[in-house]
Amino acid sequence: MKKIVLAPDSFKGTMTSAEVCGELVAAIHGVYPEAEVVSLPVADGGEGSVEAFLAAVGGERVQVDCTGPNGRRLSAGYGFLPDRTAVVEMAAAAGLPIADTKDPERTTTYGVGELMRHAADRGAGKIVMCLGGSATNDGGCGAAAACGVRFYDGQGRVFTPVGGTLGDIARIDASLLDRTLANLPIITMCDIDNPLCGNMGAAAVFGPQKGADEAMISRLDAGLAHLAEVLERDCGAAVRDLPGAGAAGGMGAGMAAFFKSRLQMGIETVLDTVGFEKKLTGADMVFTGEGRLDGQSRQGKVAAGVARRAGMRGVPVIAIVGDVGEGAETIYELGVTAVFSINRVAVPYEQARLRSRRDLRATAEDILRLCRSLEIQKKL
Amino acid sequence: MKKIVLAPDSFKGTMTSAEVCGELVAAIHGVYPEAEVVSLPVADGGEGSVEAFLAAVGGERVQVDCTGPNGRRLSAGYGFLPDRTAVVEMAAAAGLPIADTKDPERTTTYGVGELMRHAADRGAGKIVMCLGGSATNDGGCGAAAACGVRFYDGQGRVFTPVGGTLGDIARIDASLLDRTLANLPIITMCDIDNPLCGNMGAAAVFGPQKGADEAMISRLDAGLAHLAEVLERDCGAAVRDLPGAGAAGGMGAGMAAFFKSRLQMGIETVLDTVGFEKKLTGADMVFTGEGRLDGQSRQGKVAAGVARRAGMRGVPVIAIVGDVGEGAETIYELGVTAVFSINRVAVPYEQARLRSRRDLRATAEDILRLCRSLEIQKKL
Repeated sequence: MKKIVLAPDSFKGTMTSAEVCGELVAAIHGVYPEAEVVSLPVADGGEGSVEAFLAAVGGERVQVDCTGPNGRRLSAGYGFLPDRTAVVEMAAAAGLPIADTKDPERTTTYGVGELMRHAADRGAGKIVMCLGGSATNDGGCGAAAACGVRFYDGQGRVFTPVGGTLGDIARIDASLLDRTLANLPIITMCDIDNPLCGNMGAAAVFGPQKGADEAMISRLDAGLAHLAEVLERDCGAAVRDLPGAGAAGGMGAGMAAFFKSRLQMGIETVLDTVGFEKKLTGADMVFTGEGRLDGQSRQGKVAAGVARRAGMRGVPVIAIVGDVGEGAETIYELGVTAVFSINRVAVPYEQARLRSRRDLRATAEDILRLCRSLEIQKKL
Repeated sequence: MKKIVLAPDSFKGTMTSAEVCGELVAAIHGVYPEAEVVSLPVADGGEGSVEAFLAAVGGERVQVDCTGPNGRRLSAGYGFLPDRTAVVEMAAAAGLPIADTKDPERTTTYGVGELMRHAADRGAGKIVMCLGGSATNDGGCGAAAACGVRFYDGQGRVFTPVGGTLGDIARIDASLLDRTLANLPIITMCDIDNPLCGNMGAAAVFGPQKGADEAMISRLDAGLAHLAEVLERDCGAAVRDLPGAGAAGGMGAGMAAFFKSRLQMGIETVLDTVGFEKKLTGADMVFTGEGRLDGQSRQGKVAAGVARRAGMRGVPVIAIVGDVGEGAETIYELGVTAVFSINRVAVPYEQARLRSRRDLRATAEDILRLCRSLEIQKKL
């Protein structure tokens, strides 16, 4: 082993991806003191993405005063990477955890637009938007409004639509979008396929966790459907059935329609952004991992994305995970060489999580000890 | 991988060593269909040894009508291996599970002697005695009496001492031991170091689990001390402080004194008996394992014994275990290459045991997948 690349997700609830990398590095240094180790504490594009990017490739966190989900001003951060990519987490300015009250009819993504605009003004060459964890259902209209897009009601008055007033939109003028932003490549990380409206749409599927009851879901869904109509008519953007349009309260649709953003798998965006392929050069092994691997892990999860790229280059990919769930074996087809759980004693999760760091390190050490013994054997 | 040797202990409470071998074989055939697999479902010399020997090297189980621990007749089996080694489990004729009542002052090892004699008459070239699980505290006097040794009381009457009457032994005539048995090499598997008497002796340490209270322990201990004196005077055998003399109610002492048996680590005896070194020839890897690996596993456990021998020959030794306990890392010094737990989800033992077989197989598969990928990589 001369070079080992680490690209783990976080173990949700127990370790950040940076902590996972830390334990893996310690294990590697114990067994292969000379090995070059490249740590890429990636994430799947959900919460913690900014931290993960900064840890992986460096850069700085930029704090901005902006509008929170309930309209109150707050300080939110985004990441500015060395290659001038700005990484914006929607949840920083419109997240459920920072919402004063759960009310998807009133919450706004306006602050998210402010962050984007700030990044553009700062000279970003590209924006990566991380969806997820939102308190909103405004179809991204708030963010668009913050960036210059004008929404008119039936009386021709300009307003900033929220979830409850999407139905009031009579006309949209997207031509007023900030010029700098309009010319920037914007990638939206989105790991779900939900359409904007209907049974599988933003309101029906994600409304309840944001505080919507049945009646409100129905109103929100009608609002999004109306927005889709106006967007198609005024902006030429057919987002109603776009896979992922329903992500984050319709923010997927808004990113695509207002910002001409491509929606793509979070992990693919992450791996592109950190230059994963380049880091693979000369690697003898890749370690990836996540808190749980199962049949769902094929789609959009870190291990799957890492395996696909490393596997194509013939580099063995070891997935070290918390739990190995049902259906995890499908991950092999994607290029994962072997899967190891960090569980070293039969105890429930509440106990296991307390020892997860040393169990992770010990498991990695044993894997590496095995590798080393096979290397030695081949040399004899 | 051209040849893989399997030498696991049982996972107590979940899988026999033969079952462990079965899952490992299935895993190997899935990943290395061409590999030669040598299955040696060993055991540490405790319960299940006969089964383990028969499974490892073949042979037959011989059933004998003999005396049980409480004097009642019963049918007990011993193993007769292809090389004419007879494997006798003491527990088969004097075990706690088959005792009608727990009373170490009255129970006898007489039946164990009958099994030995039967084996000798059947043409055994060697006897391997497995201690452990006994209901007795007779210092092996019962077994000796069954094989011809005469015990005399103060009135010169011949009797068969039990735990409660050891103090009545006035004289021992060991010269009457069955000639065939006297000429046979007899190995006693013994994994504990306890002396015959005193605080760490047979009665004090193991008496309680056999039903002795404080007062009885004291009487039993005095009886064993008396036996030791007479053995030294009449048989020239100084067994009082012999490590292991206190095993199985003093059976360790009796085996050494009456039968001139060597007491040795169970696993060493097992590995000798199954011809482990010879099976190692040409092996690329050895799998061993046990239900739990911890700081205690250095001494006399299967993984430690297997590792010591395989490690000396430079063959990687993988220990697949249930739980990895505190201090398990000391096993590496003995030659274990790497340790993997079969736990793949964080659940308590009661749940983990129900899925242990498939978790074992999956863990082995992942280890082998890793090995294969490294082999392929080296070939490129």
